[in-house]
Amino acid sequence: MADSLAAFVEIARVRVDEALERYLPRPPRCPPLVSEAMRYSVFAGGKRFRPILTLTAANATAALTNGDGADLLGPAATLALPTACAIEMIHTYSLVHDDLPAMDNDQLRRGRPTLHVVYGDGIAILAGDALQAEAFALIAREPASLDPAITARKLRVVEIIGEAAGAIGMVGGQAIDLQAAGQAPGRSLALDATGLQGMHLRKTGALIRASAVGGAIMAGGDRQTLAAIDQWASEIGLAFQIVDDILDVEGSAQDLGKTAGKDAAGAKPTYPSLYGVARARQMADDCADRARSVLESAHVTRGWLGAIAEWVVTRRN
Amino acid sequence: MADSLAAFVEIARVRVDEALERYLPRPPRCPPLVSEAMRYSVFAGGKRFRPILTLTAANATAALTNGDGADLLGPAATLALPTACAIEMIHTYSLVHDDLPAMDNDQLRRGRPTLHVVYGDGIAILAGDALQAEAFALIAREPASLDPAITARKLRVVEIIGEAAGAIGMVGGQAIDLQAAGQAPGRSLALDATGLQGMHLRKTGALIRASAVGGAIMAGGDRQTLAAIDQWASEIGLAFQIVDDILDVEGSAQDLGKTAGKDAAGAKPTYPSLYGVARARQMADDCADRARSVLESAHVTRGWLGAIAEWVVTRRN
Repeated sequence: MADSLAAFVEIARVRVDEALERYLPRPPRCPPLVSEAMRYSVFAGGKRFRPILTLTAANATAALTNGDGADLLGPAATLALPTACAIEMIHTYSLVHDDLPAMDNDQLRRGRPTLHVVYGDGIAILAGDALQAEAFALIAREPASLDPAITARKLRVVEIIGEAAGAIGMVGGQAIDLQAAGQAPGRSLALDATGLQGMHLRKTGALIRASAVGGAIMAGGDRQTLAAIDQWASEIGLAFQIVDDILDVEGSAQDLGKTAGKDAAGAKPTYPSLYGVARARQMADDCADRARSVLESAHVTRGWLGAIAEWVVTRRN
Repeated sequence: MADSLAAFVEIARVRVDEALERYLPRPPRCPPLVSEAMRYSVFAGGKRFRPILTLTAANATAALTNGDGADLLGPAATLALPTACAIEMIHTYSLVHDDLPAMDNDQLRRGRPTLHVVYGDGIAILAGDALQAEAFALIAREPASLDPAITARKLRVVEIIGEAAGAIGMVGGQAIDLQAAGQAPGRSLALDATGLQGMHLRKTGALIRASAVGGAIMAGGDRQTLAAIDQWASEIGLAFQIVDDILDVEGSAQDLGKTAGKDAAGAKPTYPSLYGVARARQMADDCADRARSVLESAHVTRGWLGAIAEWVVTRRN
């Protein structure tokens, strides 16, 4: 049994990593180079934040619905594990593509050379493309079940993740980011505070919400629970992004494993650049407070969702 | 009623185009630049070969199962239309990414500048990424239905298309192609005849098979029908590719709307370069013959599947 968020997160992370290793295609069915390239990025030491949200939301939902222990990886987490891994695959593909010279041109990610530096741009594009396809195939395939209720949940998860990852969500947000950074020829955009928030709601917020809601769907949550978890995720998604911006200003390349100060160098607007660090930090704290009160209103009081809201605003990397 | 394959294809193409226009996300939910970029490539005058396979396979399956007219766009085609459009979105995204400077570096596609030439590499990568995500969301969402049988079919279609588009299918094939063209640093591959066929089975064959099988699944085909349609599609997929290679040798840039002779220039192996044009053409004809006899053995004799096998080997562009 996990008696702290840190212990729970560690157990969940190992479970996600083991499952990703099992779910990713391998030779001989998969060409060796694609298999290697996908694994290079998926196993680059990510925090597994999104899949942990999925498992936590699944547990909290099951605790509400049928009294399962909410602090353990119970049956609901098993049901949500493929969705958790699929979301990590999509998140990973987005990092691989965002790092490309045609986008953010990052050479370093999580302390290691980025995928395109090692395998070339072409293979990096393809490894990202494959991760996205595998993610949807995985949700459809696992857990194997002929139960119509599980089938309906899986299909609903495909839909919400597809929309969160697509043009109105993550990819749309990255396109706006590219325009704001002046990297879309003839189509630059200047973002004010509202524009910045809109960009983040798409670019990181949409997939974070889908991570949590996907877990709650797989655990059979009712409409009210899904709405509460969606709103909770929306608040912590924004808090997560604000803290990311603050860490980018305050951090060093060593702590973050990526090039610090990059946002300022690229002249992209950030929360600290628009509001200053102190007010940005207050905004993140307010998000976390709202996230916790949403849970209380919906009586989603068991499990680690509240503790995660706390962690998001106190993390150092 | 369509009294020839050409008439059927024309009706189907219009139906697919109308549906694609309806299904693609648009502003204000979708950022305008992403919406524009997706439409630029989706409506670039493609043949709609894959979605037509989907609709044709759905019709032929319904004709077998419940005696529907197989030469019309009946209820089965309506059920399969979102799948048909999703496959065209995936096919389009693959062309957009393959055309990038990091891959085939094509400036011209279907007689127009390629997407990255017009919008830049970053937006082209993102438009492709978005098309893939939208494809899976679309299959999950449409046709809207609470019928558990339809839900199960849609989920099965997500699975087969995800696998066909991913690392063991289309993307894996493109990676092998990149290696064969010497564009994967330190990981070049020399393809013999077997290697070439294996590459094509993944790169174009897998999605062509999924196009046809996806239509048959949506129409409620039984196991035997699905197997026959899968084998039919496998044969015509290979024939389609062989004819593509021959047209590349024989054609001019004007007929094809792309740079002819490109394969020879890149020193990639092709069917004509390995076997000569005459033997390559014979191989394509043999595929078409086998495709037709598979249908006869499975009593899938109504509808346009047989005529499509004929068209694939006689087409001029």
